[in-house]
Amino acid sequence: MKVCIFFDVDNTLFPTAEFAELARRNAIRAMIETGLDATEEQIYKELQRLIKEKGSNYPNHFDLILKRIGVKRPARFVAAAVAAYHNTKSSIQPYPEVPKTLMELKERGYKLYVATNGDAVKQWDKLIRMGIHLFFEDVFVSGEVGEEKSPHFFRKVLAEIKAHPSECIMVGDRMDSDIAPAKKLGIYTIRVLQGPYSKEKGKADAHISNFSELLGVVKRL
Amino acid sequence: MKVCIFFDVDNTLFPTAEFAELARRNAIRAMIETGLDATEEQIYKELQRLIKEKGSNYPNHFDLILKRIGVKRPARFVAAAVAAYHNTKSSIQPYPEVPKTLMELKERGYKLYVATNGDAVKQWDKLIRMGIHLFFEDVFVSGEVGEEKSPHFFRKVLAEIKAHPSECIMVGDRMDSDIAPAKKLGIYTIRVLQGPYSKEKGKADAHISNFSELLGVVKRL
Repeated sequence: MKVCIFFDVDNTLFPTAEFAELARRNAIRAMIETGLDATEEQIYKELQRLIKEKGSNYPNHFDLILKRIGVKRPARFVAAAVAAYHNTKSSIQPYPEVPKTLMELKERGYKLYVATNGDAVKQWDKLIRMGIHLFFEDVFVSGEVGEEKSPHFFRKVLAEIKAHPSECIMVGDRMDSDIAPAKKLGIYTIRVLQGPYSKEKGKADAHISNFSELLGVVKRL
Repeated sequence: MKVCIFFDVDNTLFPTAEFAELARRNAIRAMIETGLDATEEQIYKELQRLIKEKGSNYPNHFDLILKRIGVKRPARFVAAAVAAYHNTKSSIQPYPEVPKTLMELKERGYKLYVATNGDAVKQWDKLIRMGIHLFFEDVFVSGEVGEEKSPHFFRKVLAEIKAHPSECIMVGDRMDSDIAPAKKLGIYTIRVLQGPYSKEKGKADAHISNFSELLGVVKRL
């Protein structure tokens, strides 16, 4: 019998890729609004090049772009970009079916957990801003657990919550970090086919294209 | 004839001390709301002790407090605190008389500037969030100018805007960083008697207790 359900965060509980894109666009627009002499597309291309070079978690994208295009006193534009970026990031919303589905699962007695890669404070920040953190018994983030999601990550987590793989379900969008390592341990896996990884090859035990289908799949187990 | 007016930012254009206090209170309340087992006053006392020890710009106040009171997995509370802190900080408002007064000074042909200590991005962030950055011809921040507000700071700034001290006015709340160095150069100084430094000893060329009196003083010069 299944009693525990683990959820991935990014592109599973909310459309991370969409918000990241919007946050970048808004940051660029704010710099131009504050007087930067450039077009949105010009800066957007610079930013894409920089993300390819430095990765998306590099903390000084905007400083470096302004330096590259020869802005001498960049503080005004960095401030405008960072404010717009954070305002967008702080208004993240879950996929619309998520809160209701989590509530229904709680009402049916399932224990809900988060299992996610990333920095623990950043992942908690997302859950709190979406207003869904209270649904979860506990939140396991790679940065705090001490390793990226892997069979060993799940072994550690199962030991901590005193659960057997056969009692658990993992819900996520990615084969490599969500489905494969959980499946290897014998956890039942449900893949949500949404977001930028939806075309990745590989099979979970069940597939849904929308969170609203989750309850139906879980009830049948 | 006076043509240029320099403005300090903190406790001159907006009540910095009040917002900092509220941001801290809100951060503490958010941690308790998220499940931290402590009272607001208990954490507030810890925070005051820590600010005394490390200064108010120390970046990891909340992490360290949580460590000190023995919280093992602090990410949830750090995230809640930081979100509440930033939400408060991002809602700063100027003293209510400020925008109207700046507009009237602009209409009368004065060139307005900011002259402030601090990190350039942080000070720009405040001006942008208050919606008053467009009033200023330029913004001079110690972090970008290369030194704290001093006679030399003002000499550099005057050289850059090609102005003579006799054409300038400095408006600020602090004797040490606003009034004394500007006065030394022969800039006309106006001290705003508000905020935590209002009881400091020392005389400017003129004193006002509220921004609404500024236009009257300036018109008489």
